Amino acid sequence: MPITEPDALSPTLQLAFDLLRRPSVTPDDEGCQDVLIERLEALGFHIERLPFGDVDNFWAMRGHHGPVLAFAGHTDVVPSGPSTHWEFPPFEPCIDDHGMLCGRGASDMKGSLAAMITAVEHFVEQYPDHDGRIAFLITSDEEGPAIDGTRAVVEHLRETHERLDYCIVGEPSSTRELGDMIKNGRRGSLGGVLHIKGVQGHVAYPHLARNPIHQALPALGTLANEHWDHGNEFFPATSFQVSNIRAGSGATNVIPGDVEVIFNFRFSTEVTHEQLQARTTAILDAHGLEYSLDWTLNGEPFLTAEGALVDAAIQGVEAVTGRRPTLSTSGGTSDGRFIATLGAQVVELGPLNDTIHKVNERIRAADLDDLSRIYSATLEALFVKAESHSKGIA
Amino acid sequence: MPITEPDALSPTLQLAFDLLRRPSVTPDDEGCQDVLIERLEALGFHIERLPFGDVDNFWAMRGHHGPVLAFAGHTDVVPSGPSTHWEFPPFEPCIDDHGMLCGRGASDMKGSLAAMITAVEHFVEQYPDHDGRIAFLITSDEEGPAIDGTRAVVEHLRETHERLDYCIVGEPSSTRELGDMIKNGRRGSLGGVLHIKGVQGHVAYPHLARNPIHQALPALGTLANEHWDHGNEFFPATSFQVSNIRAGSGATNVIPGDVEVIFNFRFSTEVTHEQLQARTTAILDAHGLEYSLDWTLNGEPFLTAEGALVDAAIQGVEAVTGRRPTLSTSGGTSDGRFIATLGAQVVELGPLNDTIHKVNERIRAADLDDLSRIYSATLEALFVKAESHSKGIA
Repeated sequence: MPITEPDALSPTLQLAFDLLRRPSVTPDDEGCQDVLIERLEALGFHIERLPFGDVDNFWAMRGHHGPVLAFAGHTDVVPSGPSTHWEFPPFEPCIDDHGMLCGRGASDMKGSLAAMITAVEHFVEQYPDHDGRIAFLITSDEEGPAIDGTRAVVEHLRETHERLDYCIVGEPSSTRELGDMIKNGRRGSLGGVLHIKGVQGHVAYPHLARNPIHQALPALGTLANEHWDHGNEFFPATSFQVSNIRAGSGATNVIPGDVEVIFNFRFSTEVTHEQLQARTTAILDAHGLEYSLDWTLNGEPFLTAEGALVDAAIQGVEAVTGRRPTLSTSGGTSDGRFIATLGAQVVELGPLNDTIHKVNERIRAADLDDLSRIYSATLEALFVKAESHSKGIA
Repeated sequence: MPITEPDALSPTLQLAFDLLRRPSVTPDDEGCQDVLIERLEALGFHIERLPFGDVDNFWAMRGHHGPVLAFAGHTDVVPSGPSTHWEFPPFEPCIDDHGMLCGRGASDMKGSLAAMITAVEHFVEQYPDHDGRIAFLITSDEEGPAIDGTRAVVEHLRETHERLDYCIVGEPSSTRELGDMIKNGRRGSLGGVLHIKGVQGHVAYPHLARNPIHQALPALGTLANEHWDHGNEFFPATSFQVSNIRAGSGATNVIPGDVEVIFNFRFSTEVTHEQLQARTTAILDAHGLEYSLDWTLNGEPFLTAEGALVDAAIQGVEAVTGRRPTLSTSGGTSDGRFIATLGAQVVELGPLNDTIHKVNERIRAADLDDLSRIYSATLEALFVKAESHSKGIA
């Protein structure tokens, strides 16, 4: 029988149940942040609520001196789709007969939020006089437009000269086993919307028209085959992909007047977005096309190659799982791209990501307790001096 | 002031007004054929009504012996669009201050129908014992699917072994001056709907996907650049045009699973549609694509290179306008493609085509009277022996 009441469960799972019951479909928070804030205030955190537009955010800080480690995360979730497609209702969390915590947000990322809170509770109880400061950066707009969320909070922190040295984003980074992968960076994402203009006409009179599809083919072929870079130790080679192409009204006897091409670069730290834009334009120009091109920079690449945070996160994972995590910059974008602009070291460390954004989102319940221990052990590696560490665990 | 009442006009214009007042948007006939049939019965034509599906058609024949010349045309018109876009209401014909007959169908092709009727009336009055036989093949489905119209009537004529030697289709063939161009053939039209399959995925994980747009580019480039033939004396080179391309759902971070490409060949008599299909498939196969491809043969090419009908039509035009017409196979398809399969010589000869299918469709009113004379003179050249001709015009 699935467990639907969390009373007998660990504090982490109890908190996860509380958050998962709230249908906080982006950008709604549905009171999740109140729950987190109540717990943090009890630990002595100073809370700064930072609503922007219809998005709830807060920044919380405990301590007054030394380097700052922030836990970053989001209370919003992607829509569940029809509940009837789910084995269990998406906003009625339970632990199934296989020990899996089920519900929309279990992996992305209410489970991580619960683990962060209990990790800090445990750590503060053990080391009330730890070095450094602990912060939380929580938004309800990571799954939506991502404009009034972390991006806006980061701008506020920049303006108020808040210090931020380290950041752990709770995004689900693990692939097969908890902690097997830490994301220490992300590729940049650069989008383009290209309109290639031709001259509309009847297919029976091609000499009076100029077919923009035919004109676009060689240029798009060149773009698709271009080697933009070779990547580097941390990043795969930059990738160009056309995601959408559209021309014609459905009429089979009309040469269309223009073609729309939507493409996306995922790029390494070996090129800049300015270079990609210039090279794309040069290729289009070399093919003599008449076109317009609108760019959207979704995120610059960032990399936390080495340093105290990566070391601490690796130690934290090893201490709990006994396995050494892999560092990776693969995958999509995350709010880490905004936080990294503050100059902070940023890693993403969270549970398995195999069911995120799908029906029947779920993770091993036991993994959440381990994740809380990993976060706690990472804090310890970062903020507890060797001697006080020895004392603390004595 | 525009002329809105035709009482003082020529018989041809009076009949054109009568037809243009009927809003016979394809496939509706709105009584146009009844009007034509009444006039033809008065001339001694035998009428065979041939409705197929919701399409009205008829076949009319006068005479019992000798070669058959059919006038072919359609009573349906393309939609007018909003009346408010027209200078004059599209189904309230008038002659404007510049002497232009205005209304939907003035050029395509109720004007031609009126000219055919009065031409035959005039010719029969002059030569009641002319050689040969005169026929009419009239449909109300030329602007629509063109399945239950001329195509079906032609099948009926084939089954009943009706003789058909010559056919004048009243499509607007003139470009700058009445009779400056006679269409003595048309290119074939072959359509293809191509689906190229890839593997859908996230743009951040291109190695897990296979982008069908990228895969399609080289093959489509080869097809667009291929020289299918060089045409010949009567036909321009075969042309390949992509009219539609579509891939992606609008999401900018998804590599789509397939791309749809709709293309069209306009082909000369130098290649067959089977050859075009085989060569297209060979190119797609050579590029290693996974695809499906559905073909539609809209029409085989046809050509009436020389002979009695072309000669008579040229004589008819010269007799009325004093100018020698050009022969051409340019432009789209017409019902001539179906009629030619009966082995008949087929030409298209009608008024100027610069306003067809547009708002404010119009032609010079005087051109319709001249067109009636051209049709009559063509009949004369074809069916009146030299001696009786001399007698006739004495």
